[in-house]
Amino acid sequence: MGWDALWTNVKLATMAEAGYGAIRDGAIAVADGRIAWIGQRGDLPAPLARTVRVLHDAGGLWLTPGLIDSHTHIVFAGNRAMDFEMRLNGADRAAIYAAGGGIPSTVLKTRAASFETLLAEALPRIDSLQAEGVTTVEIKSGYGLDMETELRQLRVARRIGETRPLSVVTSFLGTHGMPPGWAGTQDSYIDFVCAESLPEAVRQGLVDIVDGGLEKLAFDHAQMRRVWDVAQRLGKPIKAHTDQYSDAGGGKVVAEVGGLSADHLECVSRPSVDAMARAGTVATVLPGANYTLRDENKPPIGWFRELGVPMALSTNCNPGSSPTASPLLMMNMACTLFMMTPEEALAGFTRNAARALGLQDSHGTLEVGKAADFALWRVGDLAELSYWLQTGRLCAGIVKGGRSVPFQPAIR
Amino acid sequence: MGWDALWTNVKLATMAEAGYGAIRDGAIAVADGRIAWIGQRGDLPAPLARTVRVLHDAGGLWLTPGLIDSHTHIVFAGNRAMDFEMRLNGADRAAIYAAGGGIPSTVLKTRAASFETLLAEALPRIDSLQAEGVTTVEIKSGYGLDMETELRQLRVARRIGETRPLSVVTSFLGTHGMPPGWAGTQDSYIDFVCAESLPEAVRQGLVDIVDGGLEKLAFDHAQMRRVWDVAQRLGKPIKAHTDQYSDAGGGKVVAEVGGLSADHLECVSRPSVDAMARAGTVATVLPGANYTLRDENKPPIGWFRELGVPMALSTNCNPGSSPTASPLLMMNMACTLFMMTPEEALAGFTRNAARALGLQDSHGTLEVGKAADFALWRVGDLAELSYWLQTGRLCAGIVKGGRSVPFQPAIR
Ligand SMILES: [Zn+2]
Ligand SMILES: [Zn+2]
Repeated sequence: MGWDALWTNVKLATMAEAGYGAIRDGAIAVADGRIAWIGQRGDLPAPLARTVRVLHDAGGLWLTPGLIDSHTHIVFAGNRAMDFEMRLNGADRAAIYAAGGGIPSTVLKTRAASFETLLAEALPRIDSLQAEGVTTVEIKSGYGLDMETELRQLRVARRIGETRPLSVVTSFLGTHGMPPGWAGTQDSYIDFVCAESLPEAVRQGLVDIVDGGLEKLAFDHAQMRRVWDVAQRLGKPIKAHTDQYSDAGGGKVVAEVGGLSADHLECVSRPSVDAMARAGTVATVLPGANYTLRDENKPPIGWFRELGVPMALSTNCNPGSSPTASPLLMMNMACTLFMMTPEEALAGFTRNAARALGLQDSHGTLEVGKAADFALWRVGDLAELSYWLQTGRLCAGIVKGGRSVPFQPAIR
Repeated sequence: MGWDALWTNVKLATMAEAGYGAIRDGAIAVADGRIAWIGQRGDLPAPLARTVRVLHDAGGLWLTPGLIDSHTHIVFAGNRAMDFEMRLNGADRAAIYAAGGGIPSTVLKTRAASFETLLAEALPRIDSLQAEGVTTVEIKSGYGLDMETELRQLRVARRIGETRPLSVVTSFLGTHGMPPGWAGTQDSYIDFVCAESLPEAVRQGLVDIVDGGLEKLAFDHAQMRRVWDVAQRLGKPIKAHTDQYSDAGGGKVVAEVGGLSADHLECVSRPSVDAMARAGTVATVLPGANYTLRDENKPPIGWFRELGVPMALSTNCNPGSSPTASPLLMMNMACTLFMMTPEEALAGFTRNAARALGLQDSHGTLEVGKAADFALWRVGDLAELSYWLQTGRLCAGIVKGGRSVPFQPAIR
């Protein structure tokens, strides 16, 4: 079988193991949407290279795996600029809620928004991600917390994957928090999730992963375990928001149930990190929320490094604590706020992000057989991806399934 | 005289006094590059409105004064990504300098770069500024610290103003620091600046403002006063980088000599702020450097507010401590790191930035007679300019001297 496309005059960062896996005078070939060959340009098999259908001269650019944004709440209605401004003018939480702000306002606006409105509001944010190299995005529900809106958020997520050259992974997050105005107990809401909203979302094919909110302010171990039991019976992998505001023991619980990732982790304990290391659980760190919330706690990067816990990094795009769609800004913040290295930051949006979504066999590195999802970068040095703080356009283009993707017009 | 252009169906933020100065159903007319009329749409004088040459329907967008980036070092060669990566991998300052990094590396690269190279490296950063609404930019020398390079940096700055629809204000910053390898004393370098580089730069018409580095690690009061005496004899206004790393008494000195602004100010003393308030000196705060340097000291926003010191805000675009060309990110950081309000952040890039450059009579607010330099924004609420953290493209376009400016292609 011949090659569909070949890139030469390119610097490759395979990200296939620790370090960038740099090949400075490389070549990479694609067939049927997957990587067919990768290596030094000088080692190209001449017969195949001669018969390739499309030959790209990359002009010496760096080519990395397409970025994977493994934790987003990008489908929502409205924004929380009013809350932001009120707080800086001295208003407290009660005053902001009384004025119609806070998380309930996002839930109510998202419930009131049509499928078309939710899609139209999300797409410019998606375009921002793609303009910075993203080829796979995870999208959560969790701003409905009722049957109808949770399903609508997930249908919008699926439609985004049909509308843009982008792989979308969906996560059901019916346990993002308690629904505003829910008359019963937390346990009665968990009953509803386990018996109704989660099984129905799965039945409609809308769920790839089941996420959960395991925090003192959200749900406890016993409640989350009930949801995850259902998830596992339905054959879905799990993950959790946990240990952000206090040590909820979440890292350990996620590890014990074989979850893909535990996310946030500013307050995770050493025993939890030990358990994550043993289980191979990914630690997803989210500097946008850490920055926006002015959180003095930082995830224990030193422990993750020491014990070999893979670190993923994500925008956590959401209107309350991380209104960002910039992976490169998150990479800078991971370095500046968490003292991660530029190489760890890039691994966090490639190799380890794939693993946080269970896609490590097909995505996240440049290896033969994996998806031909690439990002091309106008930088001399890969560290520039983390170093520049929104200065010029670094991403020269993306390739999805072996095909070059023209950028959407940069409008919002 | 008739009007050249008229915008209607527009929300105006005049920024002409404290508060946004919002006019929610406004109209603004331009003649000869200046604002000829501004007010409620319903109050438009019908005869003039009928004869206008170009009529713009702004589609309900917000229109603000074009942003003014009043403190940049945007003309430099290379970058410092290597330093950034080495430091995060544990290298100390000595190791970074030994590997050819640090400030001296930027000086040496800038000295070695041609006029064309410096221009080509700066323009994508300029385009980033313009894509976020900037219509006036201040550009400093200070990476040459010799005659030839200081002049070349300033000539590149002038050329940027001819190449782009942008007003450029130049600042001579020969006292950014001591030149690497200078054989003599600090005083002997000040002799050179006062007798040679500054007068020659002024003679060639390259200097609008004279800046200075008044820090314990740079130059002291007596040395800076010598430079400013020359500046004032040559008829040039002054400003200073000061009180960033420690209280150098700089705010007070700048106030006493009638300077336009004192910049950084993380460690400024109360007596200095009192003196600035009395003199009307602008406090320019630079959150990009505060963030990048992980500086726990913050400028005393509370004192500035209490005493009525005008606060300007800027990218401080430079390769070491603030590699950013995003005014909107700086507005977010001013709110998040310094607890400024979104309205103060916008005033910092408009009304007060104009004042920091001595342009308050011609720029920075929407008032009749001022330059018709505008930015148009795709937001429902002005607080969104500070709230969103690099999400979608907020700036819908700029108007320079009454003319709509097509964005440069977003390449770097
Ligand atoms: Zn989240
Ligand atoms: Zn500066």
